[in-house]
Amino acid sequence: MSQLPLSAAGSPVTVIRADARSDVILVCEHAAHRLPRALGTLGLTPETRLAHIAWDPGALGVARGLSRGLQAMLVAATLSRLVYDLNRPPDSPQACADRSEVFDIPDNTGLTADDRLARTEAIYLPFHDTLHGLIARRLAVGRRPVLVTVHSFTPVWFGTPRATELGVIHDADDRLARIVADRAVATTGLRVALNDPYSAADGVTHTLRLHATPYRLPHVMLELRNDLIATPDAQADMARRLTAVLTASLAQLAAEGVPA
Amino acid sequence: MSQLPLSAAGSPVTVIRADARSDVILVCEHAAHRLPRALGTLGLTPETRLAHIAWDPGALGVARGLSRGLQAMLVAATLSRLVYDLNRPPDSPQACADRSEVFDIPDNTGLTADDRLARTEAIYLPFHDTLHGLIARRLAVGRRPVLVTVHSFTPVWFGTPRATELGVIHDADDRLARIVADRAVATTGLRVALNDPYSAADGVTHTLRLHATPYRLPHVMLELRNDLIATPDAQADMARRLTAVLTASLAQLAAEGVPA
Repeated sequence: MSQLPLSAAGSPVTVIRADARSDVILVCEHAAHRLPRALGTLGLTPETRLAHIAWDPGALGVARGLSRGLQAMLVAATLSRLVYDLNRPPDSPQACADRSEVFDIPDNTGLTADDRLARTEAIYLPFHDTLHGLIARRLAVGRRPVLVTVHSFTPVWFGTPRATELGVIHDADDRLARIVADRAVATTGLRVALNDPYSAADGVTHTLRLHATPYRLPHVMLELRNDLIATPDAQADMARRLTAVLTASLAQLAAEGVPA
Repeated sequence: MSQLPLSAAGSPVTVIRADARSDVILVCEHAAHRLPRALGTLGLTPETRLAHIAWDPGALGVARGLSRGLQAMLVAATLSRLVYDLNRPPDSPQACADRSEVFDIPDNTGLTADDRLARTEAIYLPFHDTLHGLIARRLAVGRRPVLVTVHSFTPVWFGTPRATELGVIHDADDRLARIVADRAVATTGLRVALNDPYSAADGVTHTLRLHATPYRLPHVMLELRNDLIATPDAQADMARRLTAVLTASLAQLAAEGVPA
């Protein structure tokens, strides 16, 4: 391995539209496939470094479109999930996975405690402390954020095709997710499923659990099948449809009021 | 008000025994009654600035004794809860309270959004990001922290005496709290109560909710009636008794194992 420190890769987080008016804060933890130079190729072929195990293809394009459509802040990762999966806690074997679906990640094999610590300090903590600060600052000035995380999933998993096109997932509070799922069924023509292809029980709601649930923020995790958002045009079209779904859903949530 | 920035008060957090062996991380959010020079006296008399509304009298002495007894890290506040109550989120009216029990806090009346933002940035975020970093670093190297927060409460509240001497409070996971309460009943001679004089429903478990619950860390909040820990000797004695209670409780928790 190189002697370059991980920090030479620059900030692991980028914030777009930090002063946006919308209460929504969009989060895209798997936005990028970039590897820091300090880690070389992780032992992967160029093809694998661009596969769905390295990032969520199309998710950033959709998230950017939602940021424009909703006029909402977007917090996005700049490095591959194979370096550190920001939607996993530091003690998860999946935080720095040595295997993902059918792929081995050779240079993630046999990581030491110091390796994990270095990635936690260089990537996990700056990303989540940045997001925490943005949420806390809004709460301090009387704004209630709504957290929307944007992901994509592979259409074929261990050889089995997945029918779901839009998964709508929640952590402890299901209110917004149920509204979004109902609206998406009614208006998008997509095959929509609640808590599919994953749910909180699979450990995929770490970001929501860390940032939304402690502050009782309404939240939803959107999982798009990545074959539907493979091109910039498809991403823009999906963002338009989901902007309408979220706008109507937030209005409905506000009309229903916050339960005691 | 002075033109001094809040940051001139120095760090809002101090960490003792950062490299300690114990899995316990002790937290004392209400350790101090110090006001930053930038905020003057908050309009309070010298007596009120030392009253229980400004800090948890005796809690830091007990927490320091526990840190010695358990050989455990201690994370403590350096400023009064009247400037920012670190056990409250930034949107809570109690974060920068203008009234506490029977006392008005004159200079906290009519705070602007900018005032709240400045205190959140100078006090709340550095304290909780420090604690988050310490927890995440331990998780990264394979250690599972146990969070123990140490508080004290006033023996007379709105004129009514409180019978409880040790309150044992939990957030989502009650396992450690139930064990600690049972041990304390059996061995300390104190009048012990679970979730009294407060409980999570009163919003007093913000620190646990922010740091323990998202990582599923065992946790407990200890609330001591402050007349029992009014002197350094009493604090040392209480720390000795609680060190024994916590040591036995952690052994029992480990023996019972983590539920699926």
